[in-house]
Amino acid sequence: MEATAAIGTTLFADRLAAAVERKRSQLLAGLDPRPEQLPVELRGDAPLGREQAAAACTRFCCGVIDAVAPYVVGVKPQLAFFEALGSHGMKSFEDVCAYARSAELMILADAKRGDIGSTARAYASAYLEPRNGDPSLADAITVHSYLGRESLEPFLKTARRMGSGIFCVLKTSNAGGDVQDLTLSDGRPLWHQVAELISSWGEDLVGDCGLSSVGAVVGATHPRGVGEARRLLPQAILLLPGVGAQGATPADVARAFTSGPASALVSVSRSLIYAFRSSDLDWRTATGAEAARLQREVWAISGW
Amino acid sequence: MEATAAIGTTLFADRLAAAVERKRSQLLAGLDPRPEQLPVELRGDAPLGREQAAAACTRFCCGVIDAVAPYVVGVKPQLAFFEALGSHGMKSFEDVCAYARSAELMILADAKRGDIGSTARAYASAYLEPRNGDPSLADAITVHSYLGRESLEPFLKTARRMGSGIFCVLKTSNAGGDVQDLTLSDGRPLWHQVAELISSWGEDLVGDCGLSSVGAVVGATHPRGVGEARRLLPQAILLLPGVGAQGATPADVARAFTSGPASALVSVSRSLIYAFRSSDLDWRTATGAEAARLQREVWAISGW
Repeated sequence: MEATAAIGTTLFADRLAAAVERKRSQLLAGLDPRPEQLPVELRGDAPLGREQAAAACTRFCCGVIDAVAPYVVGVKPQLAFFEALGSHGMKSFEDVCAYARSAELMILADAKRGDIGSTARAYASAYLEPRNGDPSLADAITVHSYLGRESLEPFLKTARRMGSGIFCVLKTSNAGGDVQDLTLSDGRPLWHQVAELISSWGEDLVGDCGLSSVGAVVGATHPRGVGEARRLLPQAILLLPGVGAQGATPADVARAFTSGPASALVSVSRSLIYAFRSSDLDWRTATGAEAARLQREVWAISGW
Repeated sequence: MEATAAIGTTLFADRLAAAVERKRSQLLAGLDPRPEQLPVELRGDAPLGREQAAAACTRFCCGVIDAVAPYVVGVKPQLAFFEALGSHGMKSFEDVCAYARSAELMILADAKRGDIGSTARAYASAYLEPRNGDPSLADAITVHSYLGRESLEPFLKTARRMGSGIFCVLKTSNAGGDVQDLTLSDGRPLWHQVAELISSWGEDLVGDCGLSSVGAVVGATHPRGVGEARRLLPQAILLLPGVGAQGATPADVARAFTSGPASALVSVSRSLIYAFRSSDLDWRTATGAEAARLQREVWAISGW
């Protein structure tokens, strides 16, 4: 077994645990910038070209970051919405990550990458490693597990060396049971076995806080699944999307927090960043107020 | 069931079948640009910044496209290597796709994306749909199946409307059996059941050629798996990576072609584009010669 981390590197789990306790927040702001849904003062009335749309998304995400920074422990930019704007969108992603870092927020790149080892190496380099003297874009990344441990190894190596986090897709917030819920020969659903694998992959990345830097993505839309994931993965940080627009509430995920204040992260995207659409407030004020409300609610149900 | 395609749209499978028969080639050039492995005349002697490295990768990929165009039916750029160079890398990806399109090659974006429906929508838009008047970046994309049909629906809709192709990750070329080979309650490996799902997802995208626009990625490194995939997915186009650097030979995949000349695509990356590293020839000449050799060999073993 390799050493748990390079000398001087703090594991992701410990960095996150410290940030959660300092901010008393387990809330992540999901950054899903959709040009057509931005405040009209940012997008204007006419359809935008990709470059203008990307610039508007950058302004929007930076405004969201300003608004939520006091209340969230980090942000979770969803790569898909940046990629939809091409190379201009990727420049926006880089700028938004840099802005979030300057606001001292943790950055979880929601990329859901998954490929063979030699390719995974390039993905780890893209998102988790320093870039020509600049810091890494993100502190953690979401990944697929279907290609097995060999495909995760480059991310695990980077996690040891750089103190990065890895969140493996486990039980998703959509109606995606046609694969995840298949019954294995021992009678358990597939995702339970994937949970065991995730647990084994994260064994040597457990920090002083008792949590591993290899976590799992579990949709808050499956409250029973959240409890089962907690039982199967006692040391994993559970990343819980699905609160808000997808229908789950903070109360649905209370059981996720039994392994410690930082043992789960609640990610809220649409209902947080587009809060102004059902409000009379300025977009930043509406998002700030919603973040403050969610922070309190999640902290309370976490029981810490 | 929805109509199989918008009026006037030719399904991907039929477009590919026509191209394969016209060029007598089932070969794809995998574009995995690694800055440190480029010919020295492109990369120079000093370490490159990301912008310079991306420019060198563009020149390299365009040179490869010129060299292989007579012999391949398409290219398979691997997104990871472009993403590793940040927004400059994504600009390179856009330029390389445009160049491949001008060379009348099919473009398979090896992205292996997989997320819930509302996010998958953005990925389909990023890679398969026209962009402000410009054509789509790619003709087809590789995707993950772990999130089930709901997560594939946006890609299927785009495939119907735009004539795009979708290749679902099924049995990969790495040692990734820890998930894919899990035994289900009926005694079959997981990936066999995923194959059945892929078959059902592609049912209403079968073209006049008898093949579906929903294909599957099967590592050529598992010759027995290739045969099993062919049997389980008689109408799917099998995308077969793993020939060359990963150890498989064209003979290992002969069984994939029993459903027609275009029923499988052999993708060769490292051993093709870096052929100059074990040759005295100019890098373009070395790659062109290797492409010509592989084209003949694959066409011969396909038996058509």
